[in-house]
Amino acid sequence: MRPGDGVRVAVVGCGYWGSKHIRVLHAIPQVEEIIAVDPRQDRLASLKRAFPALRLHKSPKEALREADAVIVATPPSTHMAIALQALAGGKSVLVEKPLATSSLDARRLIEEAASRSAVLMTGHTFEHNAAVWKLRELVESNELGRIHYLDSARLNLGLYQGDVNVIWDLAPHDVSIFNHVLRATPKVVEAWGSRHGNRRLEDVAHIRLLYPDPEVTGTIHVSWLDPCKVRRVTIVGSSKMAVYNDLAVDERVRVYDKGVEAINSSNLQAQPMTYRYGEIRSPYLSFEEPLDVQDREFIRCVLEQDRPDTDGENGLAVVEVLECANISLREARPVYLEEVSDLAASWSGFVRAL
Amino acid sequence: MRPGDGVRVAVVGCGYWGSKHIRVLHAIPQVEEIIAVDPRQDRLASLKRAFPALRLHKSPKEALREADAVIVATPPSTHMAIALQALAGGKSVLVEKPLATSSLDARRLIEEAASRSAVLMTGHTFEHNAAVWKLRELVESNELGRIHYLDSARLNLGLYQGDVNVIWDLAPHDVSIFNHVLRATPKVVEAWGSRHGNRRLEDVAHIRLLYPDPEVTGTIHVSWLDPCKVRRVTIVGSSKMAVYNDLAVDERVRVYDKGVEAINSSNLQAQPMTYRYGEIRSPYLSFEEPLDVQDREFIRCVLEQDRPDTDGENGLAVVEVLECANISLREARPVYLEEVSDLAASWSGFVRAL
Amino acid sequence: MRPGDGVRVAVVGCGYWGSKHIRVLHAIPQVEEIIAVDPRQDRLASLKRAFPALRLHKSPKEALREADAVIVATPPSTHMAIALQALAGGKSVLVEKPLATSSLDARRLIEEAASRSAVLMTGHTFEHNAAVWKLRELVESNELGRIHYLDSARLNLGLYQGDVNVIWDLAPHDVSIFNHVLRATPKVVEAWGSRHGNRRLEDVAHIRLLYPDPEVTGTIHVSWLDPCKVRRVTIVGSSKMAVYNDLAVDERVRVYDKGVEAINSSNLQAQPMTYRYGEIRSPYLSFEEPLDVQDREFIRCVLEQDRPDTDGENGLAVVEVLECANISLREARPVYLEEVSDLAASWSGFVRAL
Amino acid sequence: MRPGDGVRVAVVGCGYWGSKHIRVLHAIPQVEEIIAVDPRQDRLASLKRAFPALRLHKSPKEALREADAVIVATPPSTHMAIALQALAGGKSVLVEKPLATSSLDARRLIEEAASRSAVLMTGHTFEHNAAVWKLRELVESNELGRIHYLDSARLNLGLYQGDVNVIWDLAPHDVSIFNHVLRATPKVVEAWGSRHGNRRLEDVAHIRLLYPDPEVTGTIHVSWLDPCKVRRVTIVGSSKMAVYNDLAVDERVRVYDKGVEAINSSNLQAQPMTYRYGEIRSPYLSFEEPLDVQDREFIRCVLEQDRPDTDGENGLAVVEVLECANISLREARPVYLEEVSDLAASWSGFVRAL
Repeated sequence: MRPGDGVRVAVVGCGYWGSKHIRVLHAIPQVEEIIAVDPRQDRLASLKRAFPALRLHKSPKEALREADAVIVATPPSTHMAIALQALAGGKSVLVEKPLATSSLDARRLIEEAASRSAVLMTGHTFEHNAAVWKLRELVESNELGRIHYLDSARLNLGLYQGDVNVIWDLAPHDVSIFNHVLRATPKVVEAWGSRHGNRRLEDVAHIRLLYPDPEVTGTIHVSWLDPCKVRRVTIVGSSKMAVYNDLAVDERVRVYDKGVEAINSSNLQAQPMTYRYGEIRSPYLSFEEPLDVQDREFIRCVLEQDRPDTDGENGLAVVEVLECANISLREARPVYLEEVSDLAASWSGFVRAL
Repeated sequence: MRPGDGVRVAVVGCGYWGSKHIRVLHAIPQVEEIIAVDPRQDRLASLKRAFPALRLHKSPKEALREADAVIVATPPSTHMAIALQALAGGKSVLVEKPLATSSLDARRLIEEAASRSAVLMTGHTFEHNAAVWKLRELVESNELGRIHYLDSARLNLGLYQGDVNVIWDLAPHDVSIFNHVLRATPKVVEAWGSRHGNRRLEDVAHIRLLYPDPEVTGTIHVSWLDPCKVRRVTIVGSSKMAVYNDLAVDERVRVYDKGVEAINSSNLQAQPMTYRYGEIRSPYLSFEEPLDVQDREFIRCVLEQDRPDTDGENGLAVVEVLECANISLREARPVYLEEVSDLAASWSGFVRAL
Repeated sequence: MRPGDGVRVAVVGCGYWGSKHIRVLHAIPQVEEIIAVDPRQDRLASLKRAFPALRLHKSPKEALREADAVIVATPPSTHMAIALQALAGGKSVLVEKPLATSSLDARRLIEEAASRSAVLMTGHTFEHNAAVWKLRELVESNELGRIHYLDSARLNLGLYQGDVNVIWDLAPHDVSIFNHVLRATPKVVEAWGSRHGNRRLEDVAHIRLLYPDPEVTGTIHVSWLDPCKVRRVTIVGSSKMAVYNDLAVDERVRVYDKGVEAINSSNLQAQPMTYRYGEIRSPYLSFEEPLDVQDREFIRCVLEQDRPDTDGENGLAVVEVLECANISLREARPVYLEEVSDLAASWSGFVRAL
Repeated sequence: MRPGDGVRVAVVGCGYWGSKHIRVLHAIPQVEEIIAVDPRQDRLASLKRAFPALRLHKSPKEALREADAVIVATPPSTHMAIALQALAGGKSVLVEKPLATSSLDARRLIEEAASRSAVLMTGHTFEHNAAVWKLRELVESNELGRIHYLDSARLNLGLYQGDVNVIWDLAPHDVSIFNHVLRATPKVVEAWGSRHGNRRLEDVAHIRLLYPDPEVTGTIHVSWLDPCKVRRVTIVGSSKMAVYNDLAVDERVRVYDKGVEAINSSNLQAQPMTYRYGEIRSPYLSFEEPLDVQDREFIRCVLEQDRPDTDGENGLAVVEVLECANISLREARPVYLEEVSDLAASWSGFVRAL
């Protein structure tokens, strides 16, 4: 981009998330121009009414050419094609989660970005969320003690996607949160899924992740078909437990000073455990809208040609887990991350050699 | 028992559940005498203080002999031995859930009861619970439409058992509820489990049941190691959804008039589903304590030599699922109920022939 | 205004509510231009960034002249002066609640509007709220039976006003809801208030209204100094009870099918009442943002020179109650609405004669 | 009573509270015998079934004579007559709240107890409640800062009393909590009340108390006619705020580290206050059943001839407030405690002289 000037950002895909990006970008001073691209004219028209300064573009190709930076907020199955073209044009790219719908595609994007020295960022908004930072802080300060497990539930009625199942749609959030909080990636993935409301795509799923270091279990329940809205992450440690409830405006994170301890006793009649109960505490969080924090960070990286924390590799780590989960769904067995990464690595070379 | 007289009930095991039985039995007019048996003298002494008419017995053998009916509320691994001896003496027996810790043992009890024409009842209290009856009514009246899935969560901090894992301890409730509501048993069982607070026994587990007819998925989350107490069953149907929250005193069952419907469209860009939102309703339930309802039913069956709904077969059906879940834990694969029942059936003959 | 054209709206006062009006007006097609006026330049600058088409005006006088319609969202004590000037220029005026800080002032505005045939609307947003409409429907359909009382609580920490106490700031909502639901005005007002966080202005108050027809008691609790946010209206009838909780996104209105009935008995030892418990129901409400509904209605009235339901008289009725409440605060006695209206009516003539 | 022996306790009145006392007394080792007295034979019969060792007595007179200590749990209007007779016989007496239904009667009991050197205790259970102790500790440790106000709500559907209004029935709890927490009594009382479900007795009331030292406002909302059960005390201080929710099993007391501070500024346009938001904390409370704690304390006082904290004077202080509240109800004006205490003091001498 032209040094010293503001950033011209193309937002490709102006549905639920795309229009949020457009709103947020309007409040970032370094953004000079926002270009909206979407196949649906009605969406564009209504955005134009709300944001008169917005520039509309019929041709995605041209929009990409005129922008310095591109935010890809299209259906997941199209992420790779659009992001690749933008990167090939040397643009900085922020791709909504999931980065791609296969680890092979994700690797392709990482390589393209590397070869062009272009910024590639993944839209893992929860890694820009003060509540998730607090969770990581609770883990790293050892306040929770040794971590036993993480559990996450992301349930609601809708919104069904048309091109990917509920795992690809909702679980990227949970995997990204777990990886972020633990600064680690899992080794094994298992998944259960069912199709109920929709014949083609799973709308309810459970995923289980085994992290080797630290040795932690992660479980995820995602659903498009539940009567109650739930957005909750629980972390259970040997000293304390924490619950992050994204729907509790004033007390997103609560820390429970309670736990159990095994009693060493040969007497099987005796109680096997002691229980400890203490105070419950909701630390105050100075909350900023995570999408806003994320998009500011993207613009900063664009301007300073810096590498974001949620870079392509970060996005790939999540995609690999989702890919394993989908294999586990089909084959009803635990899937090792290695299986996927080895395969992708070998094909990656093959594809690159084409 | 002596016709025309009241029932003399021996309660074997006077811990958490046993002492509840003793309280409840005191209010049943047909109960003439209650005999308490437990290896821990302190428990017996404190019960005697609260219930001065209670008769204490040091010898379980003699207690069984003097009673007309026996309630077995000991650790699960001892259910079989105690219940078998009571049945062998021709006594009516109510065994706390789970009926036994293997389907082979459960079958042994059923056979013994049959050969003695003795009453054998399983303590599935939730099948005596007005909220669960309401769930069944919602399903059978077709108010929920075609049932998609059932989901259950039973979480808390403690109380760890010393001789069985969390699946054997808590999941009997959920399996019994599912079987009762659907009037069916599952065909395939999968389970995940982890040991965190305790080295020997799983304290967090997820179970998945596939019911063939009606074709329904059931998922269960049980935990001894969770910061929040949860006792919740969700049923999602094609017309409505119901949630039974056992902790909500005034609104145990809520019916959500909402759902989704797939749109038949070849356009992948289009929304794949429509969503319907209607009223939420909490029917009034005239609630009686389920343990009280159950124990009255037990006494009635003893007096009338009737067969309870939650009989030995009912208890066996749950034990088979738990057994499959534990095999799935160990072998990380889906387990068919048939595997377990075929095996048990063949060994059952072998054992009988001894 | 010029017939056939869109409406040019001046928003005077661009704080919390003013900026909401600006956002909402942007989405109304009949609004041609929005002019923002505020003494604080920083507010205007930040609004301009979010809404580039917004026209800023330094001079309120000129802004009023160039507009067809004026929304007054300034501190309450300035409502009268600004609205009067706008009406005097023949403009349509929507005044945020309370219409004025004395009934004398409110009457002055009504007279001015009448003499100019100008639209005068009061910003009682809750009368444009689907939940409040549902409450009125429950009352008028007789579903609740004979109404016993209404009770309202509007509590939070902040936001303190600088020029009026918590009664003038928050209670207009509750009085407007009560008057709307009952289609009536009270006859007597009592109030208690205390100053805690602020030395000059009451920050916690209770108000009691007696409605003569129907004979209903209304109680209101308003607070700027409470740890918990509460926005709740309860209506208790002889047949059912309803609770409107504005913070419950999915179940704003709940209807409780329960009640009491007196037993006619001369036996003082006997229970004096019977209790009836039935289902709880949350009707589905198709919810639109009330401010949006209100501002559209304002624009419609401007274009069609129609009289809104929440007209000047409607605003006056609320102001009279608040005035009585403030007299009751000072004099520690019940205050009759007549006292205030008689006085204002007499002075009104006097002022008019000036 | 006979030194060295256990205490024989007569429970007069075996309704809701009386039968709770009977249950609790059974677990107190120093209680040798429990004698139940009630005009309703069905109540006695059902208690006898649950507690076979219970002694029933048809004649209250004889029961009083045979007991060492008497618990009066009859309708409030009969407290005075029964307690007086018991005290006259030299018995120790615990009277359920309110101690009496007039301060004159309460004084009569105090004098009788003094003249007989008999123990007189008032059944203010909340003063034996760990949550209320925590509130007092928060106030006295100055953690909350200077106390601004206390607010209490005690709402439910039922249970209507037959002989006193909702103020005499429910507000004793709140007044006793306020007096206990502040170690003070109020100077002025105001009250509003309405009769809805019942023609004779107020079923909804608001009370306002002004404490002079420390200068604190107390407000109380009591209702027998509310759709939602509420048991909540809020204390707002200059540093922090505390909420005691008696229905929240695990988090009865929550401490909010938030508050406001006035800004000294001559600029009326400026924000008048700053707001401070910090963490929310639920201290762990080791909870024992308050009635149990209270009755053990009563038995201890009986055995050691000690004076309980909730003595007759403590009960009188509450009765005086309730009496003022009822005068305020009738006369629609603030009532000074002095009015009632002066009058009662003068009549007290007169009555004594009879």
